[in-house]
Amino acid sequence: MYANIRRKESFLCVGLDTDIRKIPQHLLKDEDPVFAFNKAIVDATADYCIAYKPNLAFYESAGLKGMQALYKTIDYIRTNYPDQFIIADAKRGDIGNTSMMYADSFFNEMKADAVTVAPYMGQDSVTPFLGHDGHWVILLALTSNKGAADFQYIEDPNGMPLYRNVLLKSLEWGGNPDNMMYVVGATRAEMLSDIRRTVPDSFLLVPGIGAQGGSLAEVCKYGLNGKCGLIVNSSRAIIYADSTENFAKVAREKAKEVQQEMATYLK
Amino acid sequence: MYANIRRKESFLCVGLDTDIRKIPQHLLKDEDPVFAFNKAIVDATADYCIAYKPNLAFYESAGLKGMQALYKTIDYIRTNYPDQFIIADAKRGDIGNTSMMYADSFFNEMKADAVTVAPYMGQDSVTPFLGHDGHWVILLALTSNKGAADFQYIEDPNGMPLYRNVLLKSLEWGGNPDNMMYVVGATRAEMLSDIRRTVPDSFLLVPGIGAQGGSLAEVCKYGLNGKCGLIVNSSRAIIYADSTENFAKVAREKAKEVQQEMATYLK
Repeated sequence: MYANIRRKESFLCVGLDTDIRKIPQHLLKDEDPVFAFNKAIVDATADYCIAYKPNLAFYESAGLKGMQALYKTIDYIRTNYPDQFIIADAKRGDIGNTSMMYADSFFNEMKADAVTVAPYMGQDSVTPFLGHDGHWVILLALTSNKGAADFQYIEDPNGMPLYRNVLLKSLEWGGNPDNMMYVVGATRAEMLSDIRRTVPDSFLLVPGIGAQGGSLAEVCKYGLNGKCGLIVNSSRAIIYADSTENFAKVAREKAKEVQQEMATYLK
Repeated sequence: MYANIRRKESFLCVGLDTDIRKIPQHLLKDEDPVFAFNKAIVDATADYCIAYKPNLAFYESAGLKGMQALYKTIDYIRTNYPDQFIIADAKRGDIGNTSMMYADSFFNEMKADAVTVAPYMGQDSVTPFLGHDGHWVILLALTSNKGAADFQYIEDPNGMPLYRNVLLKSLEWGGNPDNMMYVVGATRAEMLSDIRRTVPDSFLLVPGIGAQGGSLAEVCKYGLNGKCGLIVNSSRAIIYADSTENFAKVAREKAKEVQQEMATYLK
């Protein structure tokens, strides 16, 4: 992935949060509108991004048909753009033997490179996702939503917020820059410097650029490290930038805009 | 559900954690072995339990075929045992608009009565699951696994552990005994009294009886309230009690044993 970042001068991840109610009308006559949309978006944006992140909720909510569209999408990316990094945004986490089933599900059945995992249940809910060579856990640390403040900021008696407790514990569990990344919301860029100090060499997956309101310049200022260290996701601002038959072309332009801004920060 | 608890003198939930590698050999020649197993277990145990709880991981890890088996299982229970309470043990939780997709997925597509939700992302990750009449959020509070201690016990500067913070916040979000329950592990029964004081009228879903080592007597001592207030799950100790052609008969006996013990505590 790092080679790809250098070559494309991009650390953009396109979020495939595909909602059948939001895709261009003309696609609805396709046999599988969600896959048709994803395929067009991938073909249009692959030059400018290094990763795709489907959020599982959008596919599960369409039942078996939705999951079929997701499997087809991942297969399409794997076949046609094998250097793209695929993140299953699933936010899973369960007792040990169950997390092992989830790891199997995402890494072996679905063939994702990485899966997002929620930390609430602690060590044995996270470690089963480690130890799959060439695969990554992306642990929720500081999320980009309003509710992040409810628990993630709570300080322990030593003044350490929960999100930093999560980072430090994950390092004790065998998490390292080669098997673990962290979800860090872009809406609180100043906290990125705290996180960057705690995990200096790790990649951070940053949602919340674009529709969720974060600034790319701020994220880069606090989050970049010597090996880039950032994957920045944009979803709605790219995939739904246009709702006509031109949607893929406009998505490509939007992705290119973000990539060109990223290139300036990488220099 | 409460009427069912009184009539059957049971608050047993059977966990449908069906793993194709663990089911009796003779079922493997069936067209859909996982569904065949579930159907037999449901038919055998329905007299003695009031709920079924499939853990999604076990089905997702078998890909589309696994999800098909799950949908068939839920449909079978809905059709043949309409008074059973169905819990999708999914431990989801995401930003607001995504949690809304998950709620749609579990309540409308899958037709579950309740879904387990992880609290790490706070209010807007949980509230989209509320407000679906006759459906329930079952929020993770204190889980039964070893890793529960990593974060759930962390105290804030006022000495309040995270799990109690989760309970109290959930009440502010509109959680009440008619739309919210809590996952509380049976492995720490003494903490149940703390939780019972915090949410006196709410139902608690207690995993960890049986294979995970909790004691039913302890759980009842600290957890029962005037309307029962407990759903106790047992999975492996019932569904895998026997691995021969007699598996369903033995599962029925095990479920009956638990029900009979429960009846004594309900009196």
